Amino acid sequence: MNDKTGKFAYEGIDRVIHEKARLSIVASLASHAEGGGGVLFGDLKELCSLTDGNLSRHLTVLQEAGVVEVKKSFKNNRPQTWCRLTVSGRKRFTEYVTELENVVADALKMQKERSGKVGWFPV
Amino acid sequence: MNDKTGKFAYEGIDRVIHEKARLSIVASLASHAEGGGGVLFGDLKELCSLTDGNLSRHLTVLQEAGVVEVKKSFKNNRPQTWCRLTVSGRKRFTEYVTELENVVADALKMQKERSGKVGWFPV
Repeated sequence: MNDKTGKFAYEGIDRVIHEKARLSIVASLASHAEGGGGVLFGDLKELCSLTDGNLSRHLTVLQEAGVVEVKKSFKNNRPQTWCRLTVSGRKRFTEYVTELENVVADALKMQKERSGKVGWFPV
Repeated sequence: MNDKTGKFAYEGIDRVIHEKARLSIVASLASHAEGGGGVLFGDLKELCSLTDGNLSRHLTVLQEAGVVEVKKSFKNNRPQTWCRLTVSGRKRFTEYVTELENVVADALKMQKERSGKVGWFPV
């Protein structure tokens, strides 16, 4: 064990949120949930460029993890599916983004240190 | 199709690099590859807090994708395994980090818009 142990382990990366499609879903919900109403399934599909099947599958994972809640309602006798982040899901996303900021900061630090040096780094 | 289509799809997220353990490996290599020499397998294991098996498995995926190259050598008659990013791997990581910056920017924008509002967002 030394001071480098786990330096790049990024323990704050929550795998439930990190998966590409789920990150897309959670970021959409975080950005569009004004007034607590949530986002319609169809709009979410569009924002994330996901198929019905993929969106459903990942929403189930997020629901089971307590990150997202889903509510069914009716409008003009047509069923509607609303999705939104739970309070805990929003908190987890905030913590996740903080860790992403660390990844970005490490990468930018490395770029800065390498700039001007002869090496692999493409300018 | 409207202006929201794919707004949160984050197409620039490269799944080869995005997976948590591989992100850890690639970030370590990007930050520690001074002079073109690369990082020893044992040091990489420590930086990423990965087991031998997990590190080997993910290095294979990264090698097959052309992101990482691995070289065996000897020091005092003991085998050494060196790992480093390829030129293309470094470029892909730079592009990936640019997309992460977009994720972070979207999330921070959302936090700013919600601050001071009554809602789910925990302060």
